[in-house]
Amino acid sequence: MKKINFSAGPSILPQQTIEETAKAILDFNSSTLSLMEVSHRGKDFIAVMDETIALFKELLNVPAGYSVIFLGGGASLQFCMVPFNLLEKKAAYLNTGTWASKAEKEAKLFGEVVEVASSKPDNFTYIPKDYTIPADADYFHITTNNTIFGTEIHTDIDSPVPLVADMSSDIFSRVIDVSKYALIYGGAQKNLAPAGLTFVVIKDEILGKVSRQIPTMLNYQTHIDNGSMFNTPPVVPIYAAMQTLRWLKAKGGVPAMEKLNKEKAALLYNEIDRNPLFIGTAAKEDRSLMNVCFVMSEGYKELEADFLKFASSKGLDGLKGHRSVGGFRASIYNAMPLEGVQALVDAMQEFEKNNAK
Amino acid sequence: MKKINFSAGPSILPQQTIEETAKAILDFNSSTLSLMEVSHRGKDFIAVMDETIALFKELLNVPAGYSVIFLGGGASLQFCMVPFNLLEKKAAYLNTGTWASKAEKEAKLFGEVVEVASSKPDNFTYIPKDYTIPADADYFHITTNNTIFGTEIHTDIDSPVPLVADMSSDIFSRVIDVSKYALIYGGAQKNLAPAGLTFVVIKDEILGKVSRQIPTMLNYQTHIDNGSMFNTPPVVPIYAAMQTLRWLKAKGGVPAMEKLNKEKAALLYNEIDRNPLFIGTAAKEDRSLMNVCFVMSEGYKELEADFLKFASSKGLDGLKGHRSVGGFRASIYNAMPLEGVQALVDAMQEFEKNNAK
Repeated sequence: MKKINFSAGPSILPQQTIEETAKAILDFNSSTLSLMEVSHRGKDFIAVMDETIALFKELLNVPAGYSVIFLGGGASLQFCMVPFNLLEKKAAYLNTGTWASKAEKEAKLFGEVVEVASSKPDNFTYIPKDYTIPADADYFHITTNNTIFGTEIHTDIDSPVPLVADMSSDIFSRVIDVSKYALIYGGAQKNLAPAGLTFVVIKDEILGKVSRQIPTMLNYQTHIDNGSMFNTPPVVPIYAAMQTLRWLKAKGGVPAMEKLNKEKAALLYNEIDRNPLFIGTAAKEDRSLMNVCFVMSEGYKELEADFLKFASSKGLDGLKGHRSVGGFRASIYNAMPLEGVQALVDAMQEFEKNNAK
Repeated sequence: MKKINFSAGPSILPQQTIEETAKAILDFNSSTLSLMEVSHRGKDFIAVMDETIALFKELLNVPAGYSVIFLGGGASLQFCMVPFNLLEKKAAYLNTGTWASKAEKEAKLFGEVVEVASSKPDNFTYIPKDYTIPADADYFHITTNNTIFGTEIHTDIDSPVPLVADMSSDIFSRVIDVSKYALIYGGAQKNLAPAGLTFVVIKDEILGKVSRQIPTMLNYQTHIDNGSMFNTPPVVPIYAAMQTLRWLKAKGGVPAMEKLNKEKAALLYNEIDRNPLFIGTAAKEDRSLMNVCFVMSEGYKELEADFLKFASSKGLDGLKGHRSVGGFRASIYNAMPLEGVQALVDAMQEFEKNNAK
């Protein structure tokens, strides 16, 4: 029996992605060669790159005038690439968590940074909503889902300046209107592929407006002009991403996934709210559909380690919360089936029966 | 029958690396979870990272005072990271090929660049030797092996200033004296792992000497301080690298590999020099042990496509030369067995019998 993987990232992937990638590593397209040892300029891999980008655009509904590129280095490298390419004078940032703070910190090396709002004083338990985006900012940066604190921006914000979003942990989990964003980026290791791949969706017209010289590899235009093949791309994660996108399409695409994700999240949050042993940590209206954070209630704090052990005995893996929040975090990305969440809810109910005072 | 893979990169890997990586993608360490979906902070993956770095240091004989880090982004990202971290006023570059030229170009964004010598007017067919390294340069940059042109610097250069080397295509292929280098970097996709992993060996004391502010992800110190875990590292390529290093150690380490590489190269170059249909393109004393470039001789030029087809019918794959050189390129990295090279030599001899005038 395979364990149920609630890890925050790297995290659960569709079984199809796992099996097809393992198969291609042994023999890619019946070439007798491994996916790991074929040229990225060979026609078989070019077909993989083309299909991955086409599916990415199709499933995310990327409009004309936008490019999709794949890079290495993780979303953390984007924290400096975004200001390198877009920040001429001033940028606005919304501070909703650890990753948002890190992105904001890098931008300060490149120009003036206005923090429009921050929920840091409340340990990032909510998404600030009452703020003004300066109309003269070069862009406004948000982190749509905060993996560590379990909060999420559920709507596409109307921004008077180009909107830049880190969607590392909620890309493809809900329908978005890409036309409201100027740039979307993220690490692929949640809803797409293994670690080592970064996706960037860019509105082409926002580039070329800063006066600084940008090193070639840090310039988005380099990768757009070369179809993500300026240098050797991360071949294995791109192949895995293609498999995940094929799986997503067969499942009904993002609308079907959003419906399922809402069902999964409702099932788990309802149990957290009902079960007297547990309590959620994020403000209800900002609860993430991807990362569900909860702790033991007052009076049950001493049972934390016991519940983790109990869950582990039921095959529920990766539930330990991040040290900044404590307690538990159930990451229920696209590849997590409803049955996986039900198994966690069953364990919470059984634990309640055994331990309620 | 598996094809014999002469691709320049991504390129041949040990069968052990291929099989063990495929196995771990299906089930990592009998956890029931895939290597692609486990946390990089879990103890099982931390053990992989620790063993990979330890084997890397052991097999390359890295002295005390040096760090080994793993990054994403490819060697091309190092072209700007090196000057970002090391270039205060002036840097010296030796121009021996396409990649050396690209590295030099990036450095010009950061300060004065002195090109000490270049073999560009001769299409990079040799390694310049008669040059002076400015004693006031912050560092001297070389590309030890030129994958495209098939030339290699066979000795560890004595440099009066810190020596920085791109060893993407000859790392672990010959014994080197790491203490003569201040920094060694490379993409892993030749002698180590699939694409998506970059290694950097750094003499710790050379860091922290430039006055500019360095973005966090581009600062070597960030990755040294965090044991290559500042952000999610490329998990799959690191696991594959560990398998390759285990294989290398079992084969007798770098000294045994150097001996075999010299045998393999001699076998092929001897045939090129003997066979009237073929001619090598690189200066004899600078011939690469890793990438063997050759073309059809005068009088046989029209047979180029025929030989590629003939070789392909014998299961010899990836022999087409880079467009900058034409003809053929046989990349005979560590994982290429002597038998693979012998098969190519046999094909050349059979082709000679069929076609000699």
